[in-house]
Amino acid sequence: MATAAERTAMRRAITLAARGLGATSPNPVVGCVVLDADGEQAGEGFHQRAGGPHAEIHALREAGVRARGGTALVTLEPCNHTGRTGPCAQALIEAGVRRVVYAVSDPNPQATGGADTLRAAGVEVEQGLLADEAEAGNTAWLTSVRLGRPYVLWKYAATLDGRIAAADATSRWITSPESRADVHRLRAEADAVVVGSGTARADDPQLGVRGVEGATQPLRVVVDTAATAVRPGARVLDGTAPTLVAVAGDADAGHLPEEAVLRLPRAAAGPGLDIDALLAALHGRGIRSVLLEGGPVLAGSFVAAGAVDTVVGYLAPVLLGAGPAALADAGISTISQALRLDVTETVRIGPDLRITAVPVPARKGN
Amino acid sequence: MATAAERTAMRRAITLAARGLGATSPNPVVGCVVLDADGEQAGEGFHQRAGGPHAEIHALREAGVRARGGTALVTLEPCNHTGRTGPCAQALIEAGVRRVVYAVSDPNPQATGGADTLRAAGVEVEQGLLADEAEAGNTAWLTSVRLGRPYVLWKYAATLDGRIAAADATSRWITSPESRADVHRLRAEADAVVVGSGTARADDPQLGVRGVEGATQPLRVVVDTAATAVRPGARVLDGTAPTLVAVAGDADAGHLPEEAVLRLPRAAAGPGLDIDALLAALHGRGIRSVLLEGGPVLAGSFVAAGAVDTVVGYLAPVLLGAGPAALADAGISTISQALRLDVTETVRIGPDLRITAVPVPARKGN
Repeated sequence: MATAAERTAMRRAITLAARGLGATSPNPVVGCVVLDADGEQAGEGFHQRAGGPHAEIHALREAGVRARGGTALVTLEPCNHTGRTGPCAQALIEAGVRRVVYAVSDPNPQATGGADTLRAAGVEVEQGLLADEAEAGNTAWLTSVRLGRPYVLWKYAATLDGRIAAADATSRWITSPESRADVHRLRAEADAVVVGSGTARADDPQLGVRGVEGATQPLRVVVDTAATAVRPGARVLDGTAPTLVAVAGDADAGHLPEEAVLRLPRAAAGPGLDIDALLAALHGRGIRSVLLEGGPVLAGSFVAAGAVDTVVGYLAPVLLGAGPAALADAGISTISQALRLDVTETVRIGPDLRITAVPVPARKGN
Repeated sequence: MATAAERTAMRRAITLAARGLGATSPNPVVGCVVLDADGEQAGEGFHQRAGGPHAEIHALREAGVRARGGTALVTLEPCNHTGRTGPCAQALIEAGVRRVVYAVSDPNPQATGGADTLRAAGVEVEQGLLADEAEAGNTAWLTSVRLGRPYVLWKYAATLDGRIAAADATSRWITSPESRADVHRLRAEADAVVVGSGTARADDPQLGVRGVEGATQPLRVVVDTAATAVRPGARVLDGTAPTLVAVAGDADAGHLPEEAVLRLPRAAAGPGLDIDALLAALHGRGIRSVLLEGGPVLAGSFVAAGAVDTVVGYLAPVLLGAGPAALADAGISTISQALRLDVTETVRIGPDLRITAVPVPARKGN
């Protein structure tokens, strides 16, 4: 059984882990707190970026000799493999840690086995403390391991009557500055931000993170099937972060920087590109989480492909009565085919509401 | 200064008042609690229906001789006029009440002056205790007095992407049984339920209140400009409650019961009837609160007329990507003309969200 001090330490480790969101892929976010033999906090750390030290290493360094006979609280099972950094299980053993408590088992076949290594060395190992909270903090990465493709969060901003713009296409601003700032937080937590050609054409978005301290800029992805929306000089090509323009295999993309062009097959049915192929290509580049920012046509393709894992809607208390809807054709023609979700959170963001929902598993992809 | 016992009693009076919603028009809802000289509750009551005794009379009857030297807590200033019942100010004086605390002044010129009458008779009078709560409980009636037309609450039920039906017009059920039960509560609290011809044609709704104990059935109103949607045998003509079919002056309504036909001028611009004329006609029949249940075209006409006082949206965590939107043309073509609202409440109703919002006063009718 974990002690109260261990629970507090694990909660701290989960908070620390979240600081890595958007910067650690293809690795998970991980936090670690080391308590000394008296149960006092001796060190803490989190995995800051792929290729850098793991959370345990940061925490052990800070703890120094106080780790000896102490306890390590880790949000994820300590790794057992030597990748770009040494195995954490070994580092914990060498530091003389007496007990290791981790929240979630590592589902990654390459990295798993850390718990066994620790036990074999005589370290007391416990699993499952605050597992739900720790899992929630690692949803994107865990989903990507389970599905073999990046986790997709679809974000939209709409009026109460579901419009993303007025009849004349004006849309600045439907939602509040507070909501727009919150979207930058979502961007900062994602490995890639994806928009469609309609959005690129209408808004010429830059797609960078602004106003989030220490944020890693996400990969910017424009799905521009015919290669007609992103023109030279587009803000998304400004060089502040890497950019991919996904185009059809036969599209004329001579006007785009060669390194930015990602050629993909067209969708078997419907408009645009094959969404599975897009996600596979991004996964292959180490992308584990995608923020899908629309517009409605691309979102419809993702919903139709069963490739939306979480929906975050910013609803502004505004009525328009005309203008485009937040979601276009998703291959749903009758009510029994509707994509049913569970609302997991509702929060006021300034004057707006932020609604978070996830597909009901049984009906997913209906 | 009101005592703690008086605050408790006023809160009870506000709760009691709400029981009259939907049954007292053209009168307001009123609750009353009488405390005896020791501050103990001696009687309580609420205004149950127009023509019946006022709240004070019910409470005084229950209190009997214990009212002497006591305090009456009333949600609205006691009336001063002899209508179908005697003036309450006089009844309170005759009962020997020492002190009267009321929450909200009576804005009705016919009824006001009760406080002065009480003071002239030597009764101590205090105003304003829990005024905000009491006003909120009487919003519909107070709005109708202020505007000279019925208060209008527009209710809609839609998916997260703002659809009220799928592409093939199926809509049973987007929202949950819990939300649908909640709508019956809204119907029970309203004097009239209003729908348009599209809804009448598509759903053949009965528009009655079901599942709400002691509910007064509202007047049922169908806006059927061309007199083509409500046919003989329609459920709305089933005789369980009065019904009005509002038609254009020149419409052929020979197939409708004569007493059900309400002839109104057409709208000066746009489709349908003149909304102001409709509301004036309803006001003239004693209707003080209207539940507008749609559909989108009629709701658009109400929004365009600046005749929506509160919006209640039931949002189901469902995505459709196609199908009609909750609100059709409201005369808004660009974002600066959008109707801006303030969200006053967000509640989970089963799996759904119920969002309540009111127009921002400065922009109302934009």
